[in-house]
Amino acid sequence: MARGAFISFEGCDGSGKSTQAAQLARTLEALGFPVLLTREPGGTAISEKIRQILLDPENAALSETAELLLYEASRAQLVNEVLRPSLEAGTWVICDRYADSTYAYQAAGRGLDAGLVQRANDLGTCGLEPDLTLLLDIDPAVALGRATKGGADRMEAEGLAFQRKIRAGYLELARKMPERIRWVDAAGTEEAVASRCHAVLVRRFPELGKAGLHV
Amino acid sequence: MARGAFISFEGCDGSGKSTQAAQLARTLEALGFPVLLTREPGGTAISEKIRQILLDPENAALSETAELLLYEASRAQLVNEVLRPSLEAGTWVICDRYADSTYAYQAAGRGLDAGLVQRANDLGTCGLEPDLTLLLDIDPAVALGRATKGGADRMEAEGLAFQRKIRAGYLELARKMPERIRWVDAAGTEEAVASRCHAVLVRRFPELGKAGLHV
Repeated sequence: MARGAFISFEGCDGSGKSTQAAQLARTLEALGFPVLLTREPGGTAISEKIRQILLDPENAALSETAELLLYEASRAQLVNEVLRPSLEAGTWVICDRYADSTYAYQAAGRGLDAGLVQRANDLGTCGLEPDLTLLLDIDPAVALGRATKGGADRMEAEGLAFQRKIRAGYLELARKMPERIRWVDAAGTEEAVASRCHAVLVRRFPELGKAGLHV
Repeated sequence: MARGAFISFEGCDGSGKSTQAAQLARTLEALGFPVLLTREPGGTAISEKIRQILLDPENAALSETAELLLYEASRAQLVNEVLRPSLEAGTWVICDRYADSTYAYQAAGRGLDAGLVQRANDLGTCGLEPDLTLLLDIDPAVALGRATKGGADRMEAEGLAFQRKIRAGYLELARKMPERIRWVDAAGTEEAVASRCHAVLVRRFPELGKAGLHV
Protein backbone atom coordinates (compact mmCIF):
# COMPACT_ATOMS: atom_id res chain seq x y z
CA MET A 1 0.00 0.00 0.00
CA ALA A 2 1.33 3.45 -0.94
CA ARG A 3 1.79 6.06 1.77
CA GLY A 4 -0.87 8.77 1.70
CA ALA A 5 -0.10 12.41 1.00
CA PHE A 6 -0.17 15.18 3.59
CA ILE A 7 -1.71 18.45 2.36
CA SER A 8 -2.05 21.52 4.57
CA PHE A 9 -4.03 24.69 3.99
CA GLU A 10 -2.71 27.97 5.34
CA GLY A 11 -3.75 31.61 5.20
CA CYS A 12 -4.96 34.63 7.14
CA ASP A 13 -8.34 34.74 8.84
CA GLY A 14 -11.04 35.03 6.17
CA SER A 15 -8.87 33.57 3.39
CA GLY A 16 -11.32 30.72 2.80
CA LYS A 17 -8.94 28.05 4.05
CA SER A 18 -11.42 26.00 6.05
CA THR A 19 -13.97 26.06 3.21
CA GLN A 20 -11.39 24.92 0.66
CA ALA A 21 -9.97 22.21 2.94
CA ALA A 22 -13.45 20.75 3.53
CA GLN A 23 -14.31 21.02 -0.16
CA LEU A 24 -11.13 19.22 -1.20
CA ALA A 25 -11.77 16.44 1.32
CA ARG A 26 -15.24 15.87 -0.17
CA THR A 27 -13.90 15.97 -3.72
CA LEU A 28 -11.09 13.47 -3.11
CA GLU A 29 -13.47 11.15 -1.27
CA ALA A 30 -15.88 11.30 -4.19
CA LEU A 31 -12.96 10.29 -6.44
CA GLY A 32 -12.40 7.20 -4.26
CA PHE A 33 -9.43 8.27 -2.15
CA PRO A 34 -9.34 7.51 1.60
CA VAL A 35 -9.32 10.96 3.22
CA LEU A 36 -8.87 12.37 6.70
CA LEU A 37 -9.78 16.03 7.28
CA THR A 38 -8.48 17.51 10.51
CA ARG A 39 -7.74 20.87 12.04
CA GLU A 40 -5.37 22.43 14.53
CA PRO A 41 -5.44 22.87 17.43
CA GLY A 42 -7.35 19.69 18.27
CA GLY A 43 -7.93 16.43 16.47
CA THR A 44 -7.41 13.99 19.38
CA ALA A 45 -9.02 13.62 22.82
CA ILE A 46 -5.77 14.75 24.48
CA SER A 47 -5.33 17.67 22.07
CA GLU A 48 -8.86 18.80 22.91
CA LYS A 49 -7.99 18.83 26.62
CA ILE A 50 -4.93 20.94 25.84
CA ARG A 51 -7.14 23.20 23.73
CA GLN A 52 -9.39 23.76 26.77
CA ILE A 53 -6.41 25.12 28.70
CA LEU A 54 -5.50 27.38 25.75
CA LEU A 55 -9.03 28.78 25.42
CA ASP A 56 -10.07 29.04 29.10
CA PRO A 57 -10.36 32.75 30.02
CA GLU A 58 -9.35 31.76 33.57
CA ASN A 59 -5.86 31.17 32.21
CA ALA A 60 -5.15 34.81 31.33
CA ALA A 61 -1.75 34.46 33.06
CA LEU A 62 -0.61 31.94 30.44
CA SER A 63 2.86 33.02 29.30
CA GLU A 64 3.70 33.26 25.59
CA THR A 65 6.24 30.45 25.72
CA ALA A 66 3.94 28.16 27.71
CA GLU A 67 1.18 28.85 25.16
CA LEU A 68 3.57 28.03 22.30
CA LEU A 69 4.61 24.77 23.98
CA LEU A 70 0.99 23.77 24.60
CA TYR A 71 0.26 24.23 20.89
CA GLU A 72 3.29 22.09 20.10
CA ALA A 73 2.29 19.39 22.60
CA SER A 74 -1.15 19.25 21.00
CA ARG A 75 0.50 19.00 17.56
CA ALA A 76 2.90 16.24 18.64
CA GLN A 77 -0.07 14.22 19.91
CA LEU A 78 -1.97 14.73 16.63
CA VAL A 79 1.10 13.71 14.61
CA ASN A 80 1.81 10.55 16.57
CA GLU A 81 -1.74 9.39 17.30
CA VAL A 82 -3.44 10.34 14.01
CA LEU A 83 -1.40 11.85 11.18
CA ARG A 84 1.49 9.38 10.94
CA PRO A 85 -0.65 6.23 11.32
CA SER A 86 -3.16 7.58 8.77
CA LEU A 87 -0.46 8.41 6.23
CA GLU A 88 1.14 4.99 6.72
CA ALA A 89 -2.27 3.39 6.12
CA GLY A 90 -2.47 5.16 2.75
CA THR A 91 -4.88 7.92 3.77
CA TRP A 92 -4.73 11.38 2.21
CA VAL A 93 -4.51 13.78 5.14
CA ILE A 94 -5.87 17.31 4.71
CA CYS A 95 -5.05 19.64 7.58
CA ASP A 96 -6.66 23.04 8.13
CA ARG A 97 -3.60 24.85 9.59
CA TYR A 98 -0.34 23.26 10.69
CA ALA A 99 3.09 24.46 11.82
CA ASP A 100 3.26 27.37 9.32
CA SER A 101 0.35 28.96 11.21
CA THR A 102 2.40 28.93 14.39
CA TYR A 103 5.21 30.74 12.60
CA ALA A 104 2.89 33.26 10.93
CA TYR A 105 0.83 34.06 14.04
CA GLN A 106 3.35 33.75 16.90
CA ALA A 107 6.55 34.96 15.22
CA ALA A 108 5.48 37.29 12.39
CA GLY A 109 2.23 38.38 14.07
CA ARG A 110 2.97 38.55 17.77
CA GLY A 111 6.70 39.10 17.60
CA LEU A 112 8.02 35.97 19.33
CA ASP A 113 11.60 35.19 18.32
CA ALA A 114 11.51 33.44 14.93
CA GLY A 115 14.27 30.99 15.85
CA LEU A 116 12.44 30.05 19.05
CA VAL A 117 9.21 29.37 17.15
CA GLN A 118 11.11 27.36 14.54
CA ARG A 119 12.75 25.21 17.22
CA ALA A 120 9.38 24.68 18.92
CA ASN A 121 7.82 23.71 15.57
CA ASP A 122 10.62 21.22 14.96
CA LEU A 123 9.70 19.52 18.25
CA GLY A 124 5.91 19.68 17.81
CA THR A 125 5.86 18.31 14.28
CA CYS A 126 8.18 15.43 15.26
CA GLY A 127 9.74 16.02 11.84
CA LEU A 128 6.51 15.50 9.90
CA GLU A 129 6.20 18.10 7.12
CA PRO A 130 3.31 18.42 4.69
CA ASP A 131 4.02 17.14 1.18
CA LEU A 132 2.23 20.21 -0.12
CA THR A 133 0.98 23.40 1.52
CA LEU A 134 -1.59 25.56 -0.22
CA LEU A 135 -1.19 29.15 0.92
CA LEU A 136 -4.47 30.94 0.27
CA ASP A 137 -3.33 34.51 -0.09
CA ILE A 138 -5.60 37.50 0.07
CA ASP A 139 -5.32 41.13 1.08
CA PRO A 140 -6.63 41.14 4.68
CA ALA A 141 -8.85 44.15 3.89
CA VAL A 142 -10.50 42.16 1.08
CA ALA A 143 -10.87 39.09 3.31
CA LEU A 144 -12.52 41.30 5.85
CA GLY A 145 -14.88 42.80 3.30
CA ARG A 146 -15.81 39.25 2.31
CA ALA A 147 -16.48 38.27 5.92
CA THR A 148 -18.50 41.31 6.88
CA LYS A 149 -20.00 42.21 3.49
CA GLY A 150 -19.58 45.80 4.56
CA GLY A 151 -15.96 46.87 4.55
CA ALA A 152 -13.21 47.11 7.11
CA ASP A 153 -14.78 49.51 9.57
CA ARG A 154 -15.94 46.76 11.92
CA MET A 155 -12.41 45.57 12.57
CA GLU A 156 -10.08 47.77 14.54
CA ALA A 157 -7.08 49.18 12.71
CA GLU A 158 -4.87 47.12 15.00
CA GLY A 159 -6.63 43.93 13.92
CA LEU A 160 -5.97 44.71 10.27
CA ALA A 161 -2.33 45.58 10.97
CA PHE A 162 -1.98 42.23 12.78
CA GLN A 163 -3.44 40.32 9.80
CA ARG A 164 -1.01 42.16 7.50
CA LYS A 165 1.94 41.00 9.61
CA ILE A 166 0.62 37.45 9.43
CA ARG A 167 0.29 37.69 5.66
CA ALA A 168 3.87 39.00 5.40
CA GLY A 169 5.04 36.05 7.50
CA TYR A 170 3.29 33.56 5.22
CA LEU A 171 4.73 35.18 2.09
CA GLU A 172 8.21 35.01 3.62
CA LEU A 173 7.76 31.28 4.31
CA ALA A 174 6.55 30.71 0.74
CA ARG A 175 9.65 32.45 -0.64
CA LYS A 176 11.91 30.32 1.57
CA MET A 177 10.22 26.99 0.77
CA PRO A 178 8.88 27.30 -2.80
CA GLU A 179 8.92 23.52 -3.32
CA ARG A 180 6.54 22.76 -0.48
CA ILE A 181 4.47 25.95 -0.14
CA ARG A 182 2.47 27.01 -3.21
CA TRP A 183 0.93 30.44 -3.40
CA VAL A 184 -2.73 30.46 -4.44
CA ASP A 185 -4.70 33.63 -5.20
CA ALA A 186 -7.66 33.45 -2.80
CA ALA A 187 -9.66 36.31 -4.31
CA GLY A 188 -12.86 35.51 -6.20
CA THR A 189 -15.55 32.87 -5.83
CA GLU A 190 -15.18 29.57 -3.95
CA GLU A 191 -15.27 27.76 -7.30
CA ALA A 192 -12.55 29.95 -8.79
CA VAL A 193 -10.27 29.39 -5.78
CA ALA A 194 -10.98 25.64 -5.78
CA SER A 195 -10.03 25.49 -9.45
CA ARG A 196 -6.68 27.18 -8.73
CA CYS A 197 -6.05 24.73 -5.87
CA HIS A 198 -6.87 21.79 -8.15
CA ALA A 199 -4.39 23.04 -10.75
CA VAL A 200 -1.60 23.06 -8.15
CA LEU A 201 -2.66 19.65 -6.81
CA VAL A 202 -2.72 17.99 -10.21
CA ARG A 203 0.77 19.25 -11.00
CA ARG A 204 2.12 17.95 -7.68
CA PHE A 205 0.12 14.69 -7.62
CA PRO A 206 -0.46 13.47 -11.22
CA GLU A 207 -2.53 10.55 -9.86
CA LEU A 208 -5.23 13.06 -8.90
CA GLY A 209 -5.53 14.24 -12.49
CA LYS A 210 -5.69 10.62 -13.72
CA ALA A 211 -8.43 9.92 -11.17
CA GLY A 212 -10.47 12.76 -12.60
CA LEU A 213 -9.73 15.84 -10.48
CA HIS A 214 -10.52 18.63 -12.91
CA VAL A 215 -9.26 22.16 -12.87
CA MET B 1 17.74 44.95 46.02
CA ALA B 2 19.98 42.00 45.10
CA ARG B 3 18.61 39.28 42.87
CA GLY B 4 17.79 36.08 44.77
CA ALA B 5 19.60 32.80 44.13
CA PHE B 6 18.05 29.80 42.37
CA ILE B 7 18.95 26.45 43.95
CA SER B 8 17.63 23.15 42.59
CA PHE B 9 17.72 19.71 44.19
CA GLU B 10 18.06 16.66 41.95
CA GLY B 11 18.40 12.93 42.45
CA CYS B 12 16.85 9.50 41.97
CA ASP B 13 13.66 8.46 43.72
CA GLY B 14 14.42 7.90 47.42
CA SER B 15 17.51 10.13 47.42
CA GLY B 16 16.03 12.39 50.09
CA LYS B 17 15.76 15.38 47.73
CA SER B 18 12.32 16.59 48.84
CA THR B 19 13.25 16.29 52.53
CA GLN B 20 16.46 18.26 52.03
CA ALA B 21 14.79 20.92 49.89
CA ALA B 22 12.11 21.51 52.52
CA GLN B 23 14.67 21.49 55.31
CA LEU B 24 16.86 24.04 53.53
CA ALA B 25 13.86 26.30 52.93
CA ARG B 26 13.05 26.27 56.66
CA THR B 27 16.68 26.88 57.60
CA LEU B 28 17.15 29.86 55.26
CA GLU B 29 13.86 31.34 56.39
CA ALA B 30 14.94 31.03 60.01
CA LEU B 31 18.13 32.91 59.07
CA GLY B 32 15.98 35.75 57.72
CA PHE B 33 16.14 35.13 53.97
CA PRO B 34 12.99 35.46 51.83
CA VAL B 35 12.45 31.93 50.48
CA LEU B 36 10.19 30.26 47.93
CA LEU B 37 10.01 26.45 47.94
CA THR B 38 8.45 24.93 44.84
CA ARG B 39 8.35 21.66 42.98
CA GLU B 40 7.96 20.38 39.46
CA PRO B 41 5.69 19.59 37.77
CA GLY B 42 3.27 22.16 39.21
CA GLY B 43 3.69 25.41 41.09
CA THR B 44 1.09 27.55 39.27
CA ALA B 45 -2.65 27.15 38.63
CA ILE B 46 -1.99 26.58 34.92
CA SER B 47 0.84 24.13 35.61
CA GLU B 48 -1.51 22.17 37.86
CA LYS B 49 -4.03 21.89 35.01
CA ILE B 50 -1.28 20.61 32.74
CA ARG B 51 -0.27 18.18 35.49
CA GLN B 52 -3.83 16.80 35.50
CA ILE B 53 -3.48 15.91 31.81
CA LEU B 54 -0.10 14.27 32.49
CA LEU B 55 -1.44 12.18 35.40
CA ASP B 56 -4.93 11.27 34.10
CA PRO B 57 -5.01 7.50 33.38
CA GLU B 58 -7.56 8.27 30.63
CA ASN B 59 -4.68 9.76 28.65
CA ALA B 60 -2.78 6.50 28.15
CA ALA B 61 -2.42 7.38 24.45
CA LEU B 62 -0.23 10.39 25.32
CA SER B 63 2.82 10.23 23.04
CA GLU B 64 6.33 10.62 24.49
CA THR B 65 6.99 13.88 22.66
CA ALA B 66 3.63 15.37 23.65
CA GLU B 67 4.35 14.39 27.27
CA LEU B 68 7.77 16.04 27.08
CA LEU B 69 6.26 19.23 25.63
CA LEU B 70 3.58 19.34 28.33
CA TYR B 71 6.28 19.15 31.01
CA GLU B 72 8.09 21.99 29.25
CA ALA B 73 4.93 24.09 28.93
CA SER B 74 4.33 23.66 32.66
CA ARG B 75 7.94 24.65 33.34
CA ALA B 76 7.78 27.74 31.08
CA GLN B 77 4.70 28.89 32.99
CA LEU B 78 6.42 28.35 36.36
CA VAL B 79 9.52 30.25 35.15
CA ASN B 80 7.61 33.25 33.83
CA GLU B 81 4.84 33.49 36.40
CA VAL B 82 6.77 32.58 39.56
CA LEU B 83 10.51 31.90 39.38
CA ARG B 84 11.75 34.96 37.46
CA PRO B 85 9.57 37.50 39.34
CA SER B 86 10.57 35.91 42.68
CA LEU B 87 14.27 36.01 41.87
CA GLU B 88 14.00 39.60 40.69
CA ALA B 89 12.28 40.48 43.97
CA GLY B 90 15.29 39.11 45.86
CA THR B 91 13.75 35.78 46.92
CA TRP B 92 15.86 32.65 47.29
CA VAL B 93 14.13 30.03 45.16
CA ILE B 94 14.51 26.37 46.11
CA CYS B 95 13.15 23.97 43.52
CA ASP B 96 12.56 20.26 44.13
CA ARG B 97 13.46 19.01 40.60
CA TYR B 98 13.99 21.15 37.49
CA ALA B 99 15.21 20.59 33.92
CA ASP B 100 17.96 18.11 34.89
CA SER B 101 15.19 15.72 35.97
CA THR B 102 13.73 15.82 32.48
CA TYR B 103 17.11 14.89 31.04
CA ALA B 104 17.75 12.12 33.58
CA TYR B 105 14.28 10.54 33.39
CA GLN B 106 13.28 11.07 29.74
CA ALA B 107 16.64 10.79 27.97
CA ALA B 108 18.87 8.63 30.20
CA GLY B 109 15.98 6.64 31.74
CA ARG B 110 13.43 6.23 28.99
CA GLY B 111 15.72 6.56 26.01
CA LEU B 112 14.34 9.66 24.29
CA ASP B 113 16.94 11.32 22.06
CA ALA B 114 19.25 13.38 24.29
CA GLY B 115 19.47 16.26 21.79
CA LEU B 116 15.67 16.40 21.55
CA VAL B 117 15.32 16.58 25.34
CA GLN B 118 18.02 19.23 25.52
CA ARG B 119 16.26 21.37 22.89
CA ALA B 120 12.94 20.95 24.71
CA ASN B 121 14.58 21.94 28.02
CA ASP B 122 16.06 25.04 26.38
CA LEU B 123 12.52 26.10 25.43
CA GLY B 124 10.85 25.15 28.73
CA THR B 125 13.39 26.88 30.97
CA CYS B 126 13.23 30.07 28.85
CA GLY B 127 16.97 30.25 29.48
CA LEU B 128 16.66 30.26 33.29
CA GLU B 129 19.32 27.99 34.84
CA PRO B 130 19.79 27.32 38.55
CA ASP B 131 22.72 29.11 40.13
CA LEU B 132 23.47 25.89 41.99
CA THR B 133 22.16 22.35 41.69
CA LEU B 134 22.64 19.88 44.52
CA LEU B 135 22.72 16.36 43.13
CA LEU B 136 21.86 13.98 45.97
CA ASP B 137 23.55 10.82 44.82
CA ILE B 138 22.87 7.40 46.24
CA ASP B 139 22.98 3.83 45.02
CA PRO B 140 19.35 3.11 44.00
CA ALA B 141 19.46 -0.20 45.89
CA VAL B 142 20.41 1.67 49.08
CA ALA B 143 17.73 4.31 48.47
CA LEU B 144 15.26 1.51 48.09
CA GLY B 145 16.41 -0.16 51.30
CA ARG B 146 15.92 3.18 53.04
CA ALA B 147 12.42 3.55 51.63
CA THR B 148 11.21 0.03 52.40
CA LYS B 149 13.37 -0.78 55.44
CA GLY B 150 13.49 -4.28 54.07
CA GLY B 151 15.72 -4.51 51.01
CA ALA B 152 15.21 -4.41 47.29
CA ASP B 153 12.95 -7.39 46.82
CA ARG B 154 9.76 -5.30 46.75
CA MET B 155 10.84 -3.42 43.65
CA GLU B 156 10.98 -5.24 40.34
CA ALA B 157 14.40 -5.71 38.81
CA GLU B 158 13.29 -3.46 35.96
CA GLY B 159 12.50 -0.65 38.37
CA LEU B 160 15.97 -0.84 39.85
CA ALA B 161 17.58 -0.96 36.39
CA PHE B 162 15.57 2.15 35.45
CA GLN B 163 16.76 4.02 38.55
CA ARG B 164 20.35 3.05 37.71
CA LYS B 165 20.00 4.57 34.24
CA ILE B 166 18.66 7.76 35.81
CA ARG B 167 21.57 7.87 38.23
CA ALA B 168 24.02 7.42 35.34
CA GLY B 169 22.30 10.30 33.51
CA TYR B 170 22.65 12.57 36.52
CA LEU B 171 26.33 11.69 36.97
CA GLU B 172 26.95 12.44 33.31
CA LEU B 173 25.33 15.88 33.68
CA ALA B 174 27.42 16.58 36.79
CA ARG B 175 30.61 15.71 34.88
CA LYS B 176 29.60 18.03 32.03
CA MET B 177 28.60 20.98 34.23
CA PRO B 178 30.81 20.81 37.32
CA GLU B 179 30.43 24.53 38.04
CA ARG B 180 26.67 24.41 38.39
CA ILE B 181 25.97 20.83 39.53
CA ARG B 182 27.59 19.71 42.78
CA TRP B 183 27.67 16.08 43.76
CA VAL B 184 26.52 15.37 47.32
CA ASP B 185 26.75 11.96 48.98
CA ALA B 186 23.16 11.21 50.01
CA ALA B 187 23.92 8.17 52.20
CA GLY B 188 23.53 8.44 55.97
CA THR B 189 21.19 10.39 58.23
CA GLU B 190 19.15 13.45 57.22
CA GLU B 191 21.41 15.57 59.44
CA ALA B 192 24.57 14.22 57.83
CA VAL B 193 23.27 14.92 54.31
CA ALA B 194 22.04 18.40 55.32
CA SER B 195 25.49 19.18 56.71
CA ARG B 196 27.11 18.18 53.37
CA CYS B 197 24.60 20.37 51.48
CA HIS B 198 25.35 23.30 53.80
CA ALA B 199 29.08 22.93 53.15
CA VAL B 200 28.49 23.23 49.40
CA LEU B 201 26.09 26.14 49.88
CA VAL B 202 28.45 28.14 52.08
CA ARG B 203 31.28 27.74 49.54
CA ARG B 204 29.03 28.93 46.71
CA PHE B 205 27.19 31.65 48.66
CA PRO B 206 29.52 33.10 51.32
CA GLU B 207 26.67 35.33 52.55
CA LEU B 208 24.96 32.21 53.90
CA GLY B 209 27.97 31.41 56.09
CA LYS B 210 28.08 35.01 57.34
CA ALA B 211 24.37 34.81 58.13
CA GLY B 212 25.02 31.78 60.32
CA LEU B 213 24.41 28.71 58.16
CA HIS B 214 26.55 26.11 59.86
CA VAL B 215 27.96 22.95 58.43
